[in-house]
Amino acid sequence: MRNVAVVGAGMMRFGKYLDRGLKDLAREAVEGALESAGVDKPALQVAVVGNAAAGLVTGQEMVRAQVMLREMGLGGIPMVNTENACASSSTAFHLAWLYVASGMYDVALALGVEKLYHEDKKRSFAAIGSAVDVEIMQKIVAAASADRKPAGDAEAGGAAGAGESRSLFMDLYAALARDHMRRYGTTKEQYARIAEKNHFNGSLNPHAQYRERYTVDEILASPAVAEPLTRLMCSPIGDGAAAVVLCSEEKARQLTTKPLWVRASVLTTGQDHGPDDPGIGDRIAAAGYEMAGLGPNDVSLAEVHDATAPAELVLYEEMGFCPRGEGGRLIDSGHTSLGGKLPVNTSGGLISKGHPIGATGTAQLYEVFLQLRGEAGERQVKGAKVGLTENGGGMIRGENAVASVHILSV
Amino acid sequence: MRNVAVVGAGMMRFGKYLDRGLKDLAREAVEGALESAGVDKPALQVAVVGNAAAGLVTGQEMVRAQVMLREMGLGGIPMVNTENACASSSTAFHLAWLYVASGMYDVALALGVEKLYHEDKKRSFAAIGSAVDVEIMQKIVAAASADRKPAGDAEAGGAAGAGESRSLFMDLYAALARDHMRRYGTTKEQYARIAEKNHFNGSLNPHAQYRERYTVDEILASPAVAEPLTRLMCSPIGDGAAAVVLCSEEKARQLTTKPLWVRASVLTTGQDHGPDDPGIGDRIAAAGYEMAGLGPNDVSLAEVHDATAPAELVLYEEMGFCPRGEGGRLIDSGHTSLGGKLPVNTSGGLISKGHPIGATGTAQLYEVFLQLRGEAGERQVKGAKVGLTENGGGMIRGENAVASVHILSV
Repeated sequence: MRNVAVVGAGMMRFGKYLDRGLKDLAREAVEGALESAGVDKPALQVAVVGNAAAGLVTGQEMVRAQVMLREMGLGGIPMVNTENACASSSTAFHLAWLYVASGMYDVALALGVEKLYHEDKKRSFAAIGSAVDVEIMQKIVAAASADRKPAGDAEAGGAAGAGESRSLFMDLYAALARDHMRRYGTTKEQYARIAEKNHFNGSLNPHAQYRERYTVDEILASPAVAEPLTRLMCSPIGDGAAAVVLCSEEKARQLTTKPLWVRASVLTTGQDHGPDDPGIGDRIAAAGYEMAGLGPNDVSLAEVHDATAPAELVLYEEMGFCPRGEGGRLIDSGHTSLGGKLPVNTSGGLISKGHPIGATGTAQLYEVFLQLRGEAGERQVKGAKVGLTENGGGMIRGENAVASVHILSV
Repeated sequence: MRNVAVVGAGMMRFGKYLDRGLKDLAREAVEGALESAGVDKPALQVAVVGNAAAGLVTGQEMVRAQVMLREMGLGGIPMVNTENACASSSTAFHLAWLYVASGMYDVALALGVEKLYHEDKKRSFAAIGSAVDVEIMQKIVAAASADRKPAGDAEAGGAAGAGESRSLFMDLYAALARDHMRRYGTTKEQYARIAEKNHFNGSLNPHAQYRERYTVDEILASPAVAEPLTRLMCSPIGDGAAAVVLCSEEKARQLTTKPLWVRASVLTTGQDHGPDDPGIGDRIAAAGYEMAGLGPNDVSLAEVHDATAPAELVLYEEMGFCPRGEGGRLIDSGHTSLGGKLPVNTSGGLISKGHPIGATGTAQLYEVFLQLRGEAGERQVKGAKVGLTENGGGMIRGENAVASVHILSV
């Protein structure tokens, strides 16, 4: 397969935009990416768009890419709509990479875009809740309902149990966090320290949805979600978009003196495994490093899927940044803070930068793009050479439904 | 890029299955494809799933592939969910092809699956209606509503105007049909003859949703949809699934003595073009023939997107099976009937076999698979060497949002 370069990236500030539609969000990110790449619209040969929830949030179930991109004058090229829950736009980037790596096209656009906020919050929750097996969820909710309250409104259909499935996600993350505490002596303060770091990093990022700094005490004192999680340890919902331009080596040499290279682009899915099998996180990290011919010690910075602070701590171990069980010690050491040896979530991560789910993957790549180009301003990692992104999504039978790793280098 | 073979295909009979879920439909198609390929589940290295409407019909907006395939024991491999309206599973096949052609994986599954029937018909219509720009449609419906009836129920949201947008599709096809009649003298009887042919072909296909034969008079006398369309000239809604197994040349040589070869796999999108530009159909046909190094005279049989009979007639011209304006004469000549030189929609097409939208693309490929392997029974095209599929989807600003052409050969 051919070498693939990343030559441009753009994103809009994540946030709550009740008055802006998907088209408008997409336009800001795509125009930013094209400008950054020095590429005009007619040069694009293929576009892959990741979006997870528009069908339930806006009613635009089909041809989302065409609706958004035609509006800004893009057409006549292949457009692929893809969805993989919170990893939708890592999947879009992966497919855009595949188009260029295969030799089929020379210039590709990957866009991630999401509107989660809606006047009717039930819609947002129904959308987010569909990242699990909805059929099973409906049965769980129906069983619980039979015990304690009237059954859900049949008219609501897919929305039945939406709130419950959202809280199910937080319950699962909380169980993961408690398990790590029990096994390895990890403390609630260590989780709070991860949130403190990410809120601090986000305060330096003009594109972050939330830019306030918090102390460990403030994070611990914020409203409880599910023991040990507090609200400030959890990613918020939001709207947003981020886009990336990829191209062949030949084209990249024409466009820029600072191309970045895609060293690994891998995607996988959970499986039913025995007790000795590694989980999805370990598997995807191993696949990424193997493809890149690099190891965790080569990584200058990483953006990982901190849907909650404990998830980041566990990912330190799964990505090989420290041995199993030592994630707590790693955050305490400052290793993953700005100024440390391997800063993680310099963008503020999902916790502070925000998590408009279908936009998260390309937004992680946007941060790595800035860092490897030396354009990250106050949060710049000095001498950054290799950036890794890890993006997870959905939940089937207690394990992430999707995981993706990308490794880029100068 | 590498040669890619198709080594197996499976499908279930399209129909109305209120008591069967997506998982069950998917299982039947995937197991059929694997058995046909002689491939076990663990041999699959990647799966791409096309589905258009599950978010609105069943509430499963996200991770549809993972939910369906994990249920049948598939996991631990990359899974990509893709949507491109009625061309969703042609897109899935195209991406599965790209994975193998690029050299990334050797064995890939492409699945198309759709449930359109729901106890609440409004859901089905809302889903189908989202193949256009929903924002624009809502404005049209709101404007029309202000004139003649109370505005749509705000609670219905995405469903507002669903019935209207479905009828809008038929109105657009009817306008296309009338335009062709005016320009070229095409007659309503010629459209009916296409429907007669497809209903006849469908009567020979055990997987067709409808297997009744109709005369031209019966077709013309069936209920009017929009002049000149009658109900028997239009595709029905339905549920269904079809799957295909693709692999590298090396792997294909191990598996079968009758591999089929993917000669072209192309996808495109509508654009805003001037009066001299070819439309999306001409563009995608040209791209397909160029990639295959073949022309329309080389094609032994074709499955094309007869969402209505006039669409098939126009596609004869766009695919180059006859000069512009001569589609009517082509159907009259018997050229595209079984026994003719280039039989079209031997499966019964969307009109008779059915059109569970996300399953249609892979079902077209299933028919080509059977024909090129000589396994099409009563409807076998003798000596078939090259099969073409054309699959369209959605509508943006009056033109298909998506078009895809695949060309397979022995």
